[in-house]
Amino acid sequence: MTEAGMTRKKFDLDAMFKPQSIAVIGASSNFTKLSGRPLRFLKEFGYAGKIYPINPNYREIAGLKCYPSLAAVPGEIDLGIVGMAAAAVPAIILECAAKGVKAVTVFSAGFAELGTEGQRMQEELRQAAWEGGVALGGPNCAGLVSVHENATATFASAMDRGALLEGPVSFVAQSGALGTYIFAAAQDAGVGFNYWVSTGNEAVLGFADYVSYFVKQESTKAVIAYMEDARNGEAFKACAIEALEAGKPLIILKVGASEAGTKAAASHTGALAGSDRVYDAVFEQCGVIRAHDVEDLFDLATISMARHYPGSPAVAIMGISGGAGILMCDRSEEVQLRVAALTTETVEALREVLPPFASAVNPVDVTAELVAVPGLLKRSMEIVLADPGIESLVIFLGLQLHTGADLARDIALTAATTEKTVVVNWIAPPAQALSILRENKIPVFPDPARGIRALGALVKYSQRRQRYLNRRQEMRNGKGASTLSQPGTNQPSIETVNHIIQEARQQGRTALTESEAKEILGLYGIATPKRHLARNGGEAALAAQELGFPVVVKIASADITHKTEAGGVRLGIQSSQEAAQAYDDLINNAMAYNPKAKLDGVLVEEMIGGDGTHDGVQVVVGFKQDARFGPVITFGMGGVFVELIRDFSLRVVPLDEPEALAMIKETKAYPLLTGYRGDAPRDIAALCQVILSASRLAQDFKEDLAELDMNPVLVLPEGKGIKAVDALIVLK
Amino acid sequence: MTEAGMTRKKFDLDAMFKPQSIAVIGASSNFTKLSGRPLRFLKEFGYAGKIYPINPNYREIAGLKCYPSLAAVPGEIDLGIVGMAAAAVPAIILECAAKGVKAVTVFSAGFAELGTEGQRMQEELRQAAWEGGVALGGPNCAGLVSVHENATATFASAMDRGALLEGPVSFVAQSGALGTYIFAAAQDAGVGFNYWVSTGNEAVLGFADYVSYFVKQESTKAVIAYMEDARNGEAFKACAIEALEAGKPLIILKVGASEAGTKAAASHTGALAGSDRVYDAVFEQCGVIRAHDVEDLFDLATISMARHYPGSPAVAIMGISGGAGILMCDRSEEVQLRVAALTTETVEALREVLPPFASAVNPVDVTAELVAVPGLLKRSMEIVLADPGIESLVIFLGLQLHTGADLARDIALTAATTEKTVVVNWIAPPAQALSILRENKIPVFPDPARGIRALGALVKYSQRRQRYLNRRQEMRNGKGASTLSQPGTNQPSIETVNHIIQEARQQGRTALTESEAKEILGLYGIATPKRHLARNGGEAALAAQELGFPVVVKIASADITHKTEAGGVRLGIQSSQEAAQAYDDLINNAMAYNPKAKLDGVLVEEMIGGDGTHDGVQVVVGFKQDARFGPVITFGMGGVFVELIRDFSLRVVPLDEPEALAMIKETKAYPLLTGYRGDAPRDIAALCQVILSASRLAQDFKEDLAELDMNPVLVLPEGKGIKAVDALIVLK
Repeated sequence: MTEAGMTRKKFDLDAMFKPQSIAVIGASSNFTKLSGRPLRFLKEFGYAGKIYPINPNYREIAGLKCYPSLAAVPGEIDLGIVGMAAAAVPAIILECAAKGVKAVTVFSAGFAELGTEGQRMQEELRQAAWEGGVALGGPNCAGLVSVHENATATFASAMDRGALLEGPVSFVAQSGALGTYIFAAAQDAGVGFNYWVSTGNEAVLGFADYVSYFVKQESTKAVIAYMEDARNGEAFKACAIEALEAGKPLIILKVGASEAGTKAAASHTGALAGSDRVYDAVFEQCGVIRAHDVEDLFDLATISMARHYPGSPAVAIMGISGGAGILMCDRSEEVQLRVAALTTETVEALREVLPPFASAVNPVDVTAELVAVPGLLKRSMEIVLADPGIESLVIFLGLQLHTGADLARDIALTAATTEKTVVVNWIAPPAQALSILRENKIPVFPDPARGIRALGALVKYSQRRQRYLNRRQEMRNGKGASTLSQPGTNQPSIETVNHIIQEARQQGRTALTESEAKEILGLYGIATPKRHLARNGGEAALAAQELGFPVVVKIASADITHKTEAGGVRLGIQSSQEAAQAYDDLINNAMAYNPKAKLDGVLVEEMIGGDGTHDGVQVVVGFKQDARFGPVITFGMGGVFVELIRDFSLRVVPLDEPEALAMIKETKAYPLLTGYRGDAPRDIAALCQVILSASRLAQDFKEDLAELDMNPVLVLPEGKGIKAVDALIVLK
Repeated sequence: MTEAGMTRKKFDLDAMFKPQSIAVIGASSNFTKLSGRPLRFLKEFGYAGKIYPINPNYREIAGLKCYPSLAAVPGEIDLGIVGMAAAAVPAIILECAAKGVKAVTVFSAGFAELGTEGQRMQEELRQAAWEGGVALGGPNCAGLVSVHENATATFASAMDRGALLEGPVSFVAQSGALGTYIFAAAQDAGVGFNYWVSTGNEAVLGFADYVSYFVKQESTKAVIAYMEDARNGEAFKACAIEALEAGKPLIILKVGASEAGTKAAASHTGALAGSDRVYDAVFEQCGVIRAHDVEDLFDLATISMARHYPGSPAVAIMGISGGAGILMCDRSEEVQLRVAALTTETVEALREVLPPFASAVNPVDVTAELVAVPGLLKRSMEIVLADPGIESLVIFLGLQLHTGADLARDIALTAATTEKTVVVNWIAPPAQALSILRENKIPVFPDPARGIRALGALVKYSQRRQRYLNRRQEMRNGKGASTLSQPGTNQPSIETVNHIIQEARQQGRTALTESEAKEILGLYGIATPKRHLARNGGEAALAAQELGFPVVVKIASADITHKTEAGGVRLGIQSSQEAAQAYDDLINNAMAYNPKAKLDGVLVEEMIGGDGTHDGVQVVVGFKQDARFGPVITFGMGGVFVELIRDFSLRVVPLDEPEALAMIKETKAYPLLTGYRGDAPRDIAALCQVILSASRLAQDFKEDLAELDMNPVLVLPEGKGIKAVDALIVLK
């Protein structure tokens, strides 16, 4: 079990988030100070548990008896709040352990974020907490809030604004300041909270521990997060899958997508947090919804409150304005929602109730009659919601100072009678209408585009979750296991690969030769062109004859990795004489290019599809290592496509066949592979297997192999498989 | 002069937007009705001019004397409000003309939007207004509001919310309902208005007339618009250029970008509004800023209020949170803002004032000390604003209930001392801070991403405007004129082209032959391969010999446009015999493919760069016609790039050389043309000339030519020019 896994088993997070008693250690009577503010908040928000201020300098603070030490407290302490200078904290944690304090949140800064000495102190802290069984949040964090329990163990300024909006969203923030601001603005946007936590340096409890805990709470329906660095890739994936399993959307605003942002993040967090594109891949694989800015985070939290999640992108749009209908169509297309055709019955039924100048097709424009005729919206909604072809309904309204509340009630009543998703986009809504919709769990957005974008994300989430559940079911039925790229080719193969790697290492090489690489691919079931290693011109001529013309010859040397640059490749050899001549030329070129290179001879290979463009579609398959998530499989179109338009897809291992297929479909390679412009369809099934084999190889040798690059892989017509024409394997 | 141009000269829009007197024709005493609401609003908002209710059924309405007819009104009438049934309106307009009413706004629906009979009535309306000299807004509109004059000639429900926020933004809305909602929500977002108008059916006054009028007003600093259809392309371009000239951003939320949206728009407005991608091109060429949703519109209006517009994308980011800094870097990259390196002096000066754990590089993280140390923000701003390498500064803050107003004052004071752009992103700001910033014309946004996106758009606008001003200056200096693709090759060439077109028309053809098309290209200075038309095998052999091998032979027939499909192309002919043989084969293939085709012989052409991939980079240049904007020049990468990744750029004619170059740079062709992976740089100057020639041809024959498609054009190494290898010209 990983340490992260152990953390979650070992510590009692109920004590942290549902504390019966809270000790404010080093409590201050100055309520503007770090150690005074939590005390004030706990009193102001009416925390119902016991509050123990600890400070030898006071008898009493704010009417509460103040204790000289933790040991002096008569009862049990669930949660301790620690805000004193860093140097004093490790000793406090030992005291907490001695007293049996179950959890602490440490505000104090001055640990790992400040360099070597801070790291040492943080390690001390970690050990003390771990050994003493104290669930430690922080250090260098802004604390936590349990809104349902009025437990405001924080100094966050969002609390200064008074009453908190309660709700089913929990929030994990990897930044105290930004987490606080987002908390406040989310409340203004109507997002009600269950738990909020600032993770700080994550010395003991980490991001994944909190997510995992929140997902388990009945009262939490969705978890939002601000993230700078997953830190522990495995723990992160595990908590994301827990959330997916539970059907509770995990929505993450992850920063560091740009070059400048990544650089800033590295200097801010002191760590390279892995490639942002790999995060996208992990989020996709684990069903995490990615938010791209702060409002996006609110919108995704809002849509998560919907009573029903649509399983298909078929959406109906209905509103009071034709223009808004067009705008929502535009945005729907961008997020792959389908403005579905309504059935003839639906259209006819709508025509009966709508005025003649209204639009009874999707997008439905009820026109201003919607306001003038009471019940018209309700009736129109019922008709559209009854259409079997649609899964969600987006309603657009604006203003309606006088009739707004009635319209909101109609929407809520109608939504309650359906299992379809109802979303409302309402520009400048009256406050009462807004309240009615929110009370009735109708997601409502202040802008026609925002509701559409959020719904698009929800549909993708639902579909991803359905795929996950289907696969889990298959695994349970014993069917799907074989398709998941679990480690493992057979044992003798493993030994052969090990032998090749060891030999290369003994020779001080960091890259395998093309022959070695292709041998390994063969062991993993990846087809390569037939080949012979020729050690002189005569052998080259003979090998060429055996393979059949045309052939390709390439220089074989572990010291020459850029063969083309070295004049070490010749294509389209048509005769034995040419092959013998090519041998001499290549050896000469190589000697001129790098006189010190040890030359093994030349590799004579069958030539697949002439110059490589006629018979096969060229793609690139490989893997590389990510700092956070380990081996990452890459797939892309060959040639300029990958480099010029960066058209490639990524997944972390392990993967299964549907995921491999999804990788292919994400790229522009897919239309070319399915038979572009009358071309023959290609062997996509074989290509999926190549991706899975690469995944297995990456897992089997994750300690040894840094990188695999098969470029190109030729995908032959359906039924004819693939050929990995060139391959490079780099050792760690 | 176009009718649109005449409209603007003829009518007095001051009477409409700065009326001294308003007549409410058919005024109702029921203030909830269409004809009652404007009266109520005029009184409530305190309109200072004369108000004349006109209705023979009342003596008095709401304390105002009511007149039986327009003729009975003693004084002059600037603006009439008309809301009665459609059938009565044309007669009213005649009455208005007789009375000398200068302008009217017609709320009444039931005109062109309802089909033939409505169209006829609208035409009647148009004629009456035109002949009577009445500036007519609508029909089927929601009226207009002059906020500065409290002239609320509207029934829009946004007025029900009371006090209007005054400001320098004017708003043209092609939807009454949506325009109303956006008006209200914009006010909530802090956007203050000058004029607002709903355009309705635009029988007389159109979108462009209003924009043009608003741009001329001292009190208007920016114009925002909601658009469904430009209707008159030329008038639209003219008003956009007027706005660009004046330096007043024209910001348009144009809907109908998606397939579903375009379909909905067509059914909603009853007209195909032209291709959305062409709108993007026109907006780009005329410096229009495109908004993509409602909030975007507010944000762009907000950023337009900045006192200084940055001319370069170099931005400094400074704030209270490292995480927000990273997020803003991410978004900056997306909108091509450059998070610029600060000079050593700047960094050192920052280090002196900032705490040691702060970040003194860009993005600058002042940390929470920003709040704790009064004056620190101001001092840090001054240091960064003094850096010569940055043009704008984005500040990030959150909350600050107690210190917010002081911080806002510091920002305003510092911003007043610089000519650089200062933008504030403030999550959950205190109301007072918000007011201070807005009063001081500091654009402020509630989300870190929104301010960055808006600033990115402003920089692009500034750069576009600078290019426009530079070009205008060049034209004035007599330099630039030659680079603008004004119509005109020489007269004899025009006559030759006319002759070719006429001949084709006489033969009942809608497409020119390849020979004809290439002859025309030659007349416009576009190089094509050398070629001979051979009428028998012997001629083909001779022609091939003269051109030099290899050659290409193609079937020559006006009846066969898909030559490859007809087996009518043979590449890489290496000898006279082969050429003669190819002649026979192609003629046979063509006869089998289409026995009725009239065959002219075969075209023998020099073969450029073997199979066309080795010597030249393949691109596609051409034009097509847009329903709203006429000839549209297209440029793209050849082959799969255009089709598979839709990588092409568009511009409407005329264009100049910098614009042609911009078209090339927008596509993935550009890196290939500049020398991709050590390849030779290509003749981009010659390619620009091809684009300009295509533009001239399109203008010279805009009544005759529907489409030009040069596919491929081979772009040869620098100094060697281009060759248009294949060309298709389609007649209108």
